[in-house]
Amino acid sequence: MKICKLKDISSQDYKRIMKRSSAEFDKIIPQIREIMEEVKEKGDEAVRKWTLEFDKVEIDDFRVSSEEIEEAYNKVDDKLIRSIKQAVANVERFHQAQLPEPAMIDIDEGIKVGWMWRPIEKVGMYAPGGRAPYPSSVIMTGVPARVAGCKERILCVPPTSGGGEASKSEGQFTPPAVTLVTADIVGFTAIYKIGGAQAIAAMTYGTETVPKVYKILGPGNNYVVAAKILAFSSGEVAIDSLPGPSEILIIADESADPRFIAADLISQSEHGFDSSSVLITTSERLAEEVEKQIELRKENIATKEAIEHSLESYGMIITTDTLDDCISFANDYASEHLEIMIRDPSSILDKINNAGSIFLGPYSPVAASDYASGSNHVLPTAGYARMFSPLSVGEYLKKTEVQELTKEGLRSISETVKTIAEKEGFLAHKRAVEVRFEEEI
Amino acid sequence: MKICKLKDISSQDYKRIMKRSSAEFDKIIPQIREIMEEVKEKGDEAVRKWTLEFDKVEIDDFRVSSEEIEEAYNKVDDKLIRSIKQAVANVERFHQAQLPEPAMIDIDEGIKVGWMWRPIEKVGMYAPGGRAPYPSSVIMTGVPARVAGCKERILCVPPTSGGGEASKSEGQFTPPAVTLVTADIVGFTAIYKIGGAQAIAAMTYGTETVPKVYKILGPGNNYVVAAKILAFSSGEVAIDSLPGPSEILIIADESADPRFIAADLISQSEHGFDSSSVLITTSERLAEEVEKQIELRKENIATKEAIEHSLESYGMIITTDTLDDCISFANDYASEHLEIMIRDPSSILDKINNAGSIFLGPYSPVAASDYASGSNHVLPTAGYARMFSPLSVGEYLKKTEVQELTKEGLRSISETVKTIAEKEGFLAHKRAVEVRFEEEI
Repeated sequence: MKICKLKDISSQDYKRIMKRSSAEFDKIIPQIREIMEEVKEKGDEAVRKWTLEFDKVEIDDFRVSSEEIEEAYNKVDDKLIRSIKQAVANVERFHQAQLPEPAMIDIDEGIKVGWMWRPIEKVGMYAPGGRAPYPSSVIMTGVPARVAGCKERILCVPPTSGGGEASKSEGQFTPPAVTLVTADIVGFTAIYKIGGAQAIAAMTYGTETVPKVYKILGPGNNYVVAAKILAFSSGEVAIDSLPGPSEILIIADESADPRFIAADLISQSEHGFDSSSVLITTSERLAEEVEKQIELRKENIATKEAIEHSLESYGMIITTDTLDDCISFANDYASEHLEIMIRDPSSILDKINNAGSIFLGPYSPVAASDYASGSNHVLPTAGYARMFSPLSVGEYLKKTEVQELTKEGLRSISETVKTIAEKEGFLAHKRAVEVRFEEEI
Repeated sequence: MKICKLKDISSQDYKRIMKRSSAEFDKIIPQIREIMEEVKEKGDEAVRKWTLEFDKVEIDDFRVSSEEIEEAYNKVDDKLIRSIKQAVANVERFHQAQLPEPAMIDIDEGIKVGWMWRPIEKVGMYAPGGRAPYPSSVIMTGVPARVAGCKERILCVPPTSGGGEASKSEGQFTPPAVTLVTADIVGFTAIYKIGGAQAIAAMTYGTETVPKVYKILGPGNNYVVAAKILAFSSGEVAIDSLPGPSEILIIADESADPRFIAADLISQSEHGFDSSSVLITTSERLAEEVEKQIELRKENIATKEAIEHSLESYGMIITTDTLDDCISFANDYASEHLEIMIRDPSSILDKINNAGSIFLGPYSPVAASDYASGSNHVLPTAGYARMFSPLSVGEYLKKTEVQELTKEGLRSISETVKTIAEKEGFLAHKRAVEVRFEEEI
C-alpha cells in the first residue's frame, strides 16, 4: 500500500482519492427504463419475464410461503439464529431510541404550532443478492420499519441470491434459508422472490402479486440504484439515499495499534474491487508498521483478490504534520466510516463535520457496527455524508405540522398576513383573514 | 361548485379527485438535460445564454451587490418591512424548536452508540418568479437554513421576477426590492439573479460566479422541479421533495361557519389554475351554504379567473353520513393542507395518518400559516404527504452515527459478529474482531 505525505500529494491524486470509484448510471438508465415501463404496464407477466432473463429461473408464485419459511428454519443452525437474534435486539434498541416526539410550541399568545409523526403506511425494502446471503442487510432495513410502525413492510430478494445458497423446492427457487429466517425474525409482512430493477418496478407501481408502496429503501447494485432513481423521478415513491461502494478513513496517532488499523483497512477492502480504505496519520512510524501488517495479514484470506485490487486502486496511507491536517482531510473526504484511533478520540469530535459513522478508540471496529453494535450500517458513501444521513427510523416516518390559533392569536398576526398576501397578489388570502373579523367592521 | 354524496361518486371521479392535476416531467426532461449539461461544461457563459433565452435580459454580474440591496430598502415601505420582520421572527421561533439533540445510548455494558447532528455546509435555495414577488418563499427556505447553521446559504431568483417588479438600474436588472430586502433580513450569504433550470444547474455544478452546493431546496415551476430531479439523479446534490400545485381539504360538521370555509376554499384556489380545493362534511345544510358563500365571495377578486377554473376542475363539496367517512377520505387524499372545522377538532387528530399541515378550529386559516404563524409553508402536495414531510430544519442537517465500545463490550458481541460475518463471506471482518483479542489466544 502506498505511503505518501499529504503535502506531496498532487492535486490530481488528491482529486482521485476524493472521487473514489463512482458509478455511471447514465448508460444503464435506458435499459432500466424499459424494465420499469414494462412492469408498470404488464405487472407480474413482465416481472416473470425479466426474472427469467436476469436470474435464469421461472417463478410461478413470487410470494414466499409460510411453508418455505418454516422449512428455512430447519436449515439454519442454532448458533447463527442466536447471533441474528442478538443483532436484531441491539439494532432494535438503538432504533427505538430514535423515535421522535410530537411537540406543540407557543409561538405567541394564542398561536400554537407544532408537529406530529406518523409511520409511512407502506414501505418496500430491497435486500441484495451477491456472492453470499446478506442477512445483515435485511436487519438494517427491516428493524427500523417495524420500530417506526409501518403497517405494510415488504421485502424483495433475488430468487437465486446468496451465491448458490438459494434452494430449489418442488421446482421453485427459494432464497437462502438464513435470509428467510432473518426476515421472519425481523418481521416483514410479506417477502417476494424478485431481484434487480424488476423488484423496484414492482414495488413502485404494484402488480397483481406485489403491492405498491410509498417508499423504497435498501442497498443494491447499480441496476437497483438506477431503478430507484427512476422510481423517485416518476413521482410515485420516495427513496432513501443512493448507496455506493463501501469505504473507510482512519485517523490515527502514534498511540494506535498498527495491527488493528491494518485489520480494519483490510476488512473494508474485502467488500469489493471498488472499496476505498485510507489511513491518515501524524506518525510516520505507524504508517510503516501498518503497511507491514497489511502485507502480512492480507495473505490467506479467501477474499484476497478484492482486498489487493481495492487497496491498490483506492487505498492510501497518508502522513501529515498535524492532527488538524488529518481532521481537515477527513472533512473533505466525508467518509462513510471514520475510525478515530488517537489518545483521546472524542476530543476531536466537535471538529468533524462530515462523516457517516464515527468509531472511537481501539475496540470499536467497523465490523462490530456492521452486524451487532446496534447502529445502522446503511450509510452515505462517496462523499454523500456531506448531505445525507445514515438510515434511521426517521426515514420511515413523516411529519405533519399542526396548528391552532385563537381569535386573538389570529388578530395579532392579521396585519402581517394581509400586508404580505397583498404584496404577493393573493387577495383572497387577505380576505380569508378579514372574514374572521367581519362582524367587527 | 359541485356538491356530491361520497357514496355517489363514481370510482372514475374518485380517482380524478385523488389524482389532482399532475405534472408530466417526461416531456421536458430532454430540454432541461441540455441546459444542465451546458452549464456543467461552460459555466457562467451558458447561464448567461439561457438567461437571455428565457428571461430576455442580459446579465453581466449575476451576484446581487450590497449596493443593490441598500437601494432596495429605499423602495419598500415600513409597514411591509415590519410585516416581514414579524413573519421571520415567528418562523424562526418555530424552526428553533426543531433543532434536534445529539444522543448516546447504552446498548449494553461497554457498548455506547449514538448520533450527532451537523449542518449541511453549503445549501442553495430557489425562490420562484411569477406574477408577483414572493417574499414568503424566501422566508420559508432561508430561515431554517440559518437556524440549522449552514455556513454557505445562497439564493437564486429570476432577474425579471415579480410580474414587472424587477427594476433596471444602470442597465442591469435587479429582482424585486421586497425580495432582496426579505433575503437580507433572512440572512443569505449571497444572492444571484438566475432563474429556472439554469439556476439549478449552476448550484449543482458550480460556475465561475456561483458556488457548487450540496443540497438544493425550495419550490419552483415544472422546469425547476425537472432540473432538481436531474440534479439529484446526477449524484451531485441532495434535494428536498417535489412541489406541485397547492391544495386544501376541509373536514367540517354542522357547527362550522360556512363563510370561513368558503373564504379558505377560494383562497386556496387563487394560487393557480391547477389548485385543488375540497370540502368534505357530514352536514348537507353546510354544504349548500358553503356553495352559496363561494358564489357570493369569489366575485370582485382580481384572481377570479384562477379561482373559477380551479374550483371547476379540481374542486368539490362532498357530503358523508359519518365523520369517520370524512377521516378515511382525508387519509386517502393525503392533503397538503387539512383544515378541521368540527366541534372538537383535536379529537380526531389521532386518526389522521396522511396530511402535510393540519389547521384546527375556526381561527386557524391556511392563509395565516402561509405567512406568519411560524410553520413552514413548503409542504408535500399531490398525495406526497403519504411519504414526505414539510420543509423543516432537519432538511438542512445531517446525522452522523457515533460509537465507542470497550474491550469487554466488543467481546460481548464478538461471537455474533464473527458468526454472521462468516456466513456473509466476509472473513477479514471476522479477523478484525479476532485481532483485538490476539494476545489472549
